[in-house]
Amino acid sequence: MRWAEGFIAVDWGTTNRRAYLIDGSGSRVDEFEDAKGVLSVAAGGFPAAVAEIRARLGDKPLLLAGMIGSNRGWMEAPYVPCPAGLDDLAGKLVWAGVREAIVPGVSFLGQGRADVMRGEEVQLLGAVAAGIVARDALVCHPGTHNKWALLRGGVIHIFGTVMTGELFSLLKEHSILAELLQRPVEVNDAFKRGVRRALERDMLPADLFEARAEVLLGQMERDDAPSYVSGLLVGTDVRIGLTWPLAARIPVMGRKELTQLYAAAIGEAGREAIELDGEGCFLAGINEIAKRI
Amino acid sequence: MRWAEGFIAVDWGTTNRRAYLIDGSGSRVDEFEDAKGVLSVAAGGFPAAVAEIRARLGDKPLLLAGMIGSNRGWMEAPYVPCPAGLDDLAGKLVWAGVREAIVPGVSFLGQGRADVMRGEEVQLLGAVAAGIVARDALVCHPGTHNKWALLRGGVIHIFGTVMTGELFSLLKEHSILAELLQRPVEVNDAFKRGVRRALERDMLPADLFEARAEVLLGQMERDDAPSYVSGLLVGTDVRIGLTWPLAARIPVMGRKELTQLYAAAIGEAGREAIELDGEGCFLAGINEIAKRI
Repeated sequence: MRWAEGFIAVDWGTTNRRAYLIDGSGSRVDEFEDAKGVLSVAAGGFPAAVAEIRARLGDKPLLLAGMIGSNRGWMEAPYVPCPAGLDDLAGKLVWAGVREAIVPGVSFLGQGRADVMRGEEVQLLGAVAAGIVARDALVCHPGTHNKWALLRGGVIHIFGTVMTGELFSLLKEHSILAELLQRPVEVNDAFKRGVRRALERDMLPADLFEARAEVLLGQMERDDAPSYVSGLLVGTDVRIGLTWPLAARIPVMGRKELTQLYAAAIGEAGREAIELDGEGCFLAGINEIAKRI
Repeated sequence: MRWAEGFIAVDWGTTNRRAYLIDGSGSRVDEFEDAKGVLSVAAGGFPAAVAEIRARLGDKPLLLAGMIGSNRGWMEAPYVPCPAGLDDLAGKLVWAGVREAIVPGVSFLGQGRADVMRGEEVQLLGAVAAGIVARDALVCHPGTHNKWALLRGGVIHIFGTVMTGELFSLLKEHSILAELLQRPVEVNDAFKRGVRRALERDMLPADLFEARAEVLLGQMERDDAPSYVSGLLVGTDVRIGLTWPLAARIPVMGRKELTQLYAAAIGEAGREAIELDGEGCFLAGINEIAKRI
């Protein structure tokens, strides 16, 4: 490892970024999070955005993961095709400067399907390296675009994306259902009813409209609508995910407010889930990549 | 019929309105269309918006259908429950003034489902009255919210809504797919491929994201994306519709740019469709209701 004095790890997404100062032993010693996602940085603005990170956390080398490596980010880091492990990612780092490396995303092509991820690969492979997830596992990684990743021998073998989080945001912000969806989503009876509906019949674009009709016709409490609609979407996602080869327990990795929804939906489907903190997995993965530099 | 001197019929939707001057014999003699849908009229603004119609088409009685009777319109016209025929609609007109009547929408409650329509009922029942659609039929009525209506004995027996048009608009205007969806949709090979995908596997929220991945990874021409994504959505809609009891040929009623998509998708599913002009059906239906006043 060239970076014996430590480095700064950044999980740089579309709408926010989280930066961590990592010392020479791999421990997190400082961090911050802000809303400066790649979409908020103008073309040509990344050197300044990076300087700002160093001004806050110190003048260290940077290892950047996530949408920062997309065509909307600082510099495009071409996707590494599946099967993809930590050695593959470390071997295909893109250097935006002599002390600024970007982790590539991962692509899948085959079985008549195409898919891409950026950012989740660090968490998925980090969890395996840390021994939190088995080397052969199906992992659910909720987010704006939920990933179902099949790990084989400790590498990402196949994966599939379901755009559940984005669909819920679109409905909440811009659709005819918007006025019904402003309250927080909870794991309650309405959520579970939505999940069961989605598991029982595959008619999401019909069930979404019916949610509004149920409220209009007095068949559902208005306050239950956000949880019910979330349940329809997460339930559809889990129905799709459960078509993959399954282990006994399904690790669900990410932020608590999302992993709890998926864990509940997986439970409604009669399967067992185990929730994992995505941040810890990211730190484990980014340290493994830094070791290989 | 009290309105022997003719009347003005208005199909007043969320985002636009079409007004027709009908003479004493039931013939259309003048008309206009504009973007003054109910959402663009401020609270209290409907008397002025109605006066404007009379200023353009003459000082006649008005018969208003569509979202004008919703809680966002001029005055709420409570839904008439299924089974609903022309006599039911005419018997439940809501009078906003002595010469201004609003046609109610139709609701369905039963089989664990709830649904509502406003505006389509006039077209559906008009088509039956005009002998264009059989008294027992499954009719597809594409729009922002596509309706599958089961007619029995000339009345609306059951119906279901699929929010296909709105989902496409949300994706086109606000989603990560937006930049890919700006070209016009065409009934071409890409559209049919999307339809077949949706008929074969019920994974819409996954297939939508994969469309973007296919372009990123060079598996689909960028210009094909709008038609392919439209095919995924319309194909999902048709897959849902084909679970209803079917006649040999399925009438598809509405605007040509939408009916052609549904007719093509129904064809891909191995069924036959017949396209009907929604405007003619509306005029037939609104005349039938006016006769009953």
